[in-house]
Amino acid sequence: MKNVKITYIGGGSQQWALRLMADLALSEKLSGRLVLYDIDHAAALKNKEISAQIFGKPGAVGKFAVDVEETLEAALKDADFVVISIEPGPTEKRFIDLKIPEKYGICQTVGDTTGPGGIARAIRSIPTMADFAHAIMAVCPDAWVINYTNPMAWCTGALYAAEPGIKALGCCHEVFHTQEMLAKWIAETYKVDMPTRHDIKLDISGVNHFTFATDAVWKGKSVLQDFADSMKAGEPEVLSKNALDREANEDWFTSEFKVAEDFLARFGVLGAAGDRHLAEFVPWYLSSKQEINSWGVCVTPYEWRVKRSQNPDEARQKYLEEDLSPSGEEGVVLLEALAGATDELVRTNFNMPNMGQNPDAPVGAIVESYGLISENKVEPITCGILPSAVQALEDRNLEIQQLVLDGVMNKDKDMIFAGFAIDPLNAISPRASRALFEEIWQALEMDY
Amino acid sequence: MKNVKITYIGGGSQQWALRLMADLALSEKLSGRLVLYDIDHAAALKNKEISAQIFGKPGAVGKFAVDVEETLEAALKDADFVVISIEPGPTEKRFIDLKIPEKYGICQTVGDTTGPGGIARAIRSIPTMADFAHAIMAVCPDAWVINYTNPMAWCTGALYAAEPGIKALGCCHEVFHTQEMLAKWIAETYKVDMPTRHDIKLDISGVNHFTFATDAVWKGKSVLQDFADSMKAGEPEVLSKNALDREANEDWFTSEFKVAEDFLARFGVLGAAGDRHLAEFVPWYLSSKQEINSWGVCVTPYEWRVKRSQNPDEARQKYLEEDLSPSGEEGVVLLEALAGATDELVRTNFNMPNMGQNPDAPVGAIVESYGLISENKVEPITCGILPSAVQALEDRNLEIQQLVLDGVMNKDKDMIFAGFAIDPLNAISPRASRALFEEIWQALEMDY
Amino acid sequence: MKNVKITYIGGGSQQWALRLMADLALSEKLSGRLVLYDIDHAAALKNKEISAQIFGKPGAVGKFAVDVEETLEAALKDADFVVISIEPGPTEKRFIDLKIPEKYGICQTVGDTTGPGGIARAIRSIPTMADFAHAIMAVCPDAWVINYTNPMAWCTGALYAAEPGIKALGCCHEVFHTQEMLAKWIAETYKVDMPTRHDIKLDISGVNHFTFATDAVWKGKSVLQDFADSMKAGEPEVLSKNALDREANEDWFTSEFKVAEDFLARFGVLGAAGDRHLAEFVPWYLSSKQEINSWGVCVTPYEWRVKRSQNPDEARQKYLEEDLSPSGEEGVVLLEALAGATDELVRTNFNMPNMGQNPDAPVGAIVESYGLISENKVEPITCGILPSAVQALEDRNLEIQQLVLDGVMNKDKDMIFAGFAIDPLNAISPRASRALFEEIWQALEMDY
Amino acid sequence: MKNVKITYIGGGSQQWALRLMADLALSEKLSGRLVLYDIDHAAALKNKEISAQIFGKPGAVGKFAVDVEETLEAALKDADFVVISIEPGPTEKRFIDLKIPEKYGICQTVGDTTGPGGIARAIRSIPTMADFAHAIMAVCPDAWVINYTNPMAWCTGALYAAEPGIKALGCCHEVFHTQEMLAKWIAETYKVDMPTRHDIKLDISGVNHFTFATDAVWKGKSVLQDFADSMKAGEPEVLSKNALDREANEDWFTSEFKVAEDFLARFGVLGAAGDRHLAEFVPWYLSSKQEINSWGVCVTPYEWRVKRSQNPDEARQKYLEEDLSPSGEEGVVLLEALAGATDELVRTNFNMPNMGQNPDAPVGAIVESYGLISENKVEPITCGILPSAVQALEDRNLEIQQLVLDGVMNKDKDMIFAGFAIDPLNAISPRASRALFEEIWQALEMDY
Repeated sequence: MKNVKITYIGGGSQQWALRLMADLALSEKLSGRLVLYDIDHAAALKNKEISAQIFGKPGAVGKFAVDVEETLEAALKDADFVVISIEPGPTEKRFIDLKIPEKYGICQTVGDTTGPGGIARAIRSIPTMADFAHAIMAVCPDAWVINYTNPMAWCTGALYAAEPGIKALGCCHEVFHTQEMLAKWIAETYKVDMPTRHDIKLDISGVNHFTFATDAVWKGKSVLQDFADSMKAGEPEVLSKNALDREANEDWFTSEFKVAEDFLARFGVLGAAGDRHLAEFVPWYLSSKQEINSWGVCVTPYEWRVKRSQNPDEARQKYLEEDLSPSGEEGVVLLEALAGATDELVRTNFNMPNMGQNPDAPVGAIVESYGLISENKVEPITCGILPSAVQALEDRNLEIQQLVLDGVMNKDKDMIFAGFAIDPLNAISPRASRALFEEIWQALEMDY
Repeated sequence: MKNVKITYIGGGSQQWALRLMADLALSEKLSGRLVLYDIDHAAALKNKEISAQIFGKPGAVGKFAVDVEETLEAALKDADFVVISIEPGPTEKRFIDLKIPEKYGICQTVGDTTGPGGIARAIRSIPTMADFAHAIMAVCPDAWVINYTNPMAWCTGALYAAEPGIKALGCCHEVFHTQEMLAKWIAETYKVDMPTRHDIKLDISGVNHFTFATDAVWKGKSVLQDFADSMKAGEPEVLSKNALDREANEDWFTSEFKVAEDFLARFGVLGAAGDRHLAEFVPWYLSSKQEINSWGVCVTPYEWRVKRSQNPDEARQKYLEEDLSPSGEEGVVLLEALAGATDELVRTNFNMPNMGQNPDAPVGAIVESYGLISENKVEPITCGILPSAVQALEDRNLEIQQLVLDGVMNKDKDMIFAGFAIDPLNAISPRASRALFEEIWQALEMDY
Repeated sequence: MKNVKITYIGGGSQQWALRLMADLALSEKLSGRLVLYDIDHAAALKNKEISAQIFGKPGAVGKFAVDVEETLEAALKDADFVVISIEPGPTEKRFIDLKIPEKYGICQTVGDTTGPGGIARAIRSIPTMADFAHAIMAVCPDAWVINYTNPMAWCTGALYAAEPGIKALGCCHEVFHTQEMLAKWIAETYKVDMPTRHDIKLDISGVNHFTFATDAVWKGKSVLQDFADSMKAGEPEVLSKNALDREANEDWFTSEFKVAEDFLARFGVLGAAGDRHLAEFVPWYLSSKQEINSWGVCVTPYEWRVKRSQNPDEARQKYLEEDLSPSGEEGVVLLEALAGATDELVRTNFNMPNMGQNPDAPVGAIVESYGLISENKVEPITCGILPSAVQALEDRNLEIQQLVLDGVMNKDKDMIFAGFAIDPLNAISPRASRALFEEIWQALEMDY
Repeated sequence: MKNVKITYIGGGSQQWALRLMADLALSEKLSGRLVLYDIDHAAALKNKEISAQIFGKPGAVGKFAVDVEETLEAALKDADFVVISIEPGPTEKRFIDLKIPEKYGICQTVGDTTGPGGIARAIRSIPTMADFAHAIMAVCPDAWVINYTNPMAWCTGALYAAEPGIKALGCCHEVFHTQEMLAKWIAETYKVDMPTRHDIKLDISGVNHFTFATDAVWKGKSVLQDFADSMKAGEPEVLSKNALDREANEDWFTSEFKVAEDFLARFGVLGAAGDRHLAEFVPWYLSSKQEINSWGVCVTPYEWRVKRSQNPDEARQKYLEEDLSPSGEEGVVLLEALAGATDELVRTNFNMPNMGQNPDAPVGAIVESYGLISENKVEPITCGILPSAVQALEDRNLEIQQLVLDGVMNKDKDMIFAGFAIDPLNAISPRASRALFEEIWQALEMDY
């Protein structure tokens, strides 16, 4: 067992911190210290309080001392790993991301990644992430940083923009769901036992939440064409009903992959993220609530998000009652590999500055790709080539990524606006687009 | 006087052929033979008939024998120059470009350059232009070809795709109007005599009809910032009224440059084409008739186009009654320079395959830039750099240009569809987008 | 155990075929059929004859039936894997590569990769490799091809130039030796047990035989700077004596890594190939026999090569007398991974067309990089960035690679000559350079 | 007549300052003030003294008041134009450039542009040029700067590296001589009156002194192929004798264009600079004095340079005795065009940071190309494409340019050495190369 110190920024979270503790409790390869840090210090203390319960559950093997620190610097001291998973501002700030654009006719399913909502969230997240980066490089420059915070590309980008020497990865589980969907389809189609998601080897390319699988290999055989041939478009009426049923059940996150499949049908590559994310990168699926529902997708409401955030203890309690089980996230697997606690190479997807893994994206842009993780070493794998029409859609997003990141880092409002103005969801009158931007700017209390 | 043979493909045109004859009649540097060729042979004959009247008008100095040939090959024989200015198909074919998309909620001001209408027109023009290219290279491979036909980028691109060794330029007067507008503004602002448009030296970059001026120099002084400072946004109500008044007067082509100026206000570069063209490249101005009118721009109706095409003799007669005057086009100036009939270097804008003049566009893409014309020599001048947000808009169009051109040249329907699907005006439901494409495809009687 | 059919082109070889059989005999994961094919049919038969002895040695676990076929097509039938390891022409052809350039003052240590000798060898190898590629794609298009033949970049490039859809890897052990040298240094420097070469994780970039390590990681720690700090330049006199001693012992292949280290001292990256290979890519070490000896390197003489080739049975006999031991090559490890006979990911170096793994090389050029091998899947890993001075040296070689490959594939003598003329070893008078080229051309009996 | 103020840095020069005065005296379009500045103040005063004689010669029409200033800042005040033509250090410093490399077996024909000599000269020129740039931007930021100083690429590059907003052009007459040579050949070949050099329109690409003509057009007709067909290689013996005869006559600068033609014969493009310059960029022509003489080229000796520099008054006196005649330089033509004193567009060659005019060179590198000059406006023309073998030679030089410029600007000795080490003329032992570098470094009294 390797002994490590892990610092968790956002350690007061009602969900992610508990899940990480569960995964650590299940790890046979790591032990040591976990330090929770959160601007909501009380929440971090609560998580520390219940940590013993998690590490004491039946099946727990990992041994971790859990502490809380009041300052970021104290929390980072001697850290081997830093996990960042925060919400930028209280949940009520999401009003800016979601409700203000709605007034101008722009509806977003998630609003945390791209579009006017994602950009608003980026404007307030980037400086925070830049501060984290400076603190990390001052206190524990050799630590590996795993970021889970959205908007993924902007948050990871801010870490590198502030401190180019930082060793940071952005991790996201969306691609896992695509593997799971394909695993299920394989079991049904080829009449075999359900493969695990790891048995499906994808080639992906793109930016986080707008990734595409250019190939899917199972047992050495490419199955993407078979999958494409077997797809059924789905009746808009049926899909709409499914969406409305889910809305009634507050089941916001289920995806029928009809948007992902629509990309495959029209352009030849399978969307490799949930439909609610994919839909936000193009002006096609979100023109109206009816349209997005007709793909089986619901809009996660602002009101539900606020409601949930107001009952953190309830979520914690519910989690404690469950049996110890793996979260499905790969964070601890990465920590094991980076710590040299395993000899196995880990091949997984992550977000990092492009150093060539995506030959069609600018060097330095934050892209998602597969890569290889081993002791203190991360090596991106060369991406497959996207069809040029899909790459053109990616290019737009990459350009917006750059403009908003540079704009916020340099306090250049015109540059941020330029990125905002060319966002595909922003297909409204230029006059309205300017008014929306100014309303967001004011709500964010920006002073430049 | 240099003796040259000029072949005019589309020589039955009721307007452009007469204007070229007028410019030739006014040229002190060229004489020779002009051969008209048109699939509407009768129309060409009519133009020949009235040619003597044009060359006989007071003020005419050029001496040209005007002939008509029945076959393209005969017309091209011994040509030094080939001018191409055709309408692809009878005007009624524009129903496909304009009225079918309208059914799906897509309204285009012109519909001959980009968007679903421009793509429909490209699909039927590209094979024709490719045929012209083959005939030219077979019969008169050393001739310079001046193309005036829209969609400019696709038609010029088809010439080069079919025959990479062809010597062709695509010429367009839109940039001239921007110079004229600035000349007027200079006279008013600096209280000087009105400069000629040639006194305003622009730097431009982009694709035809979506070009931008990155600088405007008058008497060695950059005036773009002064112009930007003096712009007034204009009241939407007033602009809408102007547009409706013009509609009532069938005055479709006047531009108040409010779209051009909106780009300058928001992104820092001045649109250098008429507003009715600029508006078609982005999803912002054409969301409704009200929106486009609020920028002072009218939609040229299909019905008016058909009506005009049905009275060609009327147009000819009207033209004959006018005094001989320069058309404002630069075709004959280019012919003089290319023929070596003048020692002066000519600096003008044209469309050619990118060989580096636009460092931000792919090599081989048809881009518009300034260049230098001299005897048998055309040299593009390096373009200014567009702001990256505007370049991102150009990039989308360049990608569509490539997909549709390659798709038509290789009879690859999926590739054409991919270009169609990512067109910014095509911001409709993917299901509707597919249906629209299929309806256009059927109306065009495509068989692949 | 996975059942596979392996076809060995060049199966009459006195060394490589035997080594592959030994590795197969030691494999616990593969069994099946090995088919030997060679234009020297008798040699292949001899190897078949002794195969039973190899598979019967103590310690052998793999079960392979060994056959010989008289035609390439018969040999390739149903192949899952094709191994190519040939000598292009009888060894006497090496006179052209080695002795003709010597007359013009150009001395090469190996002469099989680059320089006039490597180019001569490329001119005669490329058409042969292209023929292999066509046969493979006609008979067993799904087979993976492992090429061991030099010149590596040109031979692998010819396979892809002839058949872009081929699935081929070029494999070379030079990088292994760099790992072994570092392992030894680590044991000495850090006073630890000798690591295996697999414990040293290199980052490499470049072309085969001119690769450089931009980093070397052992137990998660970068050791390259320590290594650089500990290097001693070495006295030219001592190194010369070493070289001459080795010449006397016909020990041609030993490398003291002084050239490799010289690159590290001067440019910051460690040469990751034997010195006798590295020296041939620049005009610095081979100006005279004295110069190259002063780096501890000998020139492998043509005469010795011929002598060895004339006693194949002796080599075979010697091999049979040895105990069964792994060859040190990775071919069988790759076959196991590609066959899906193991669950472990294999990370190794190989040569493939650049698809982005080397962001500084042209797409399609044959570059060496690390990559990941799994069932029917090969994924290149993004290379480290070379210092720009070293990349400039690589660029020259990449340009020559392209000119000679394209030139031979298209029978364009001028293009081949252009590549030859700019080779760094060809720093002789242009008049002599032309004469040398023509003498080689004639000796190769080229007819275009 | 336009009234301008011209500042001449290096105004004490015994040749260039007088020639500029002569050209100004002959200009019908400019008048005003010429201010001479030189660190050798006495020399500048001498030139002022004789200025009246030049402006008073028969045929003089331009009216210029000539002044001398003691400080650079005073000289630059109100300047519209700045001409820079200096020798970096006393001529004796050329010992470092020429005689030290000779000790290591490296012989250079000129040694002011590239190779060890050019790099030594760059190391001492770049800081001086950077100082000029800072002074210009502080005092007269709108002035156009014409640099004549060698090494051209490094000196012009230093101006832009120090002050990216500077408006500077590097001008060189080498290409003019290629035009003149072709003019003479045209007269002889086509039996016509001798054209002027302006009648020969070249397409060029490359870096200064290593430019190549990809085409040569006369009267609208490409003549390069005819020229290539008519070339005769020349007997080495005869050429050697010519070279030795010229040495005896101290006629160092005459070129027979045999190196220029050798490039055309071998690679398809004509060297467009004097042979003594072209030869220094490749390792082929300067391997020995015999070799370079065999191309009809002499080595300009250090001793002659020193001798000449010691008799400046003699040179001045000789110049004063001559009739007033144009210098053949284009400086004043550029000043007229930039000042708006003429309506004609000027097409000429110059050196500027690449902004796309050379699609094969990095953006920002100093490249030579044609361009268009008009009032306060300079527009590069897109270069022709060099054959890839020649581009590979250019690439090496461009890489060295970058390493040495960045190295000197950032006082990074290792970076400068990296550029030095990969220079093609530096094809000596790495040990000798390091020793040579250190000897130069010490002689230059560098302190980092």
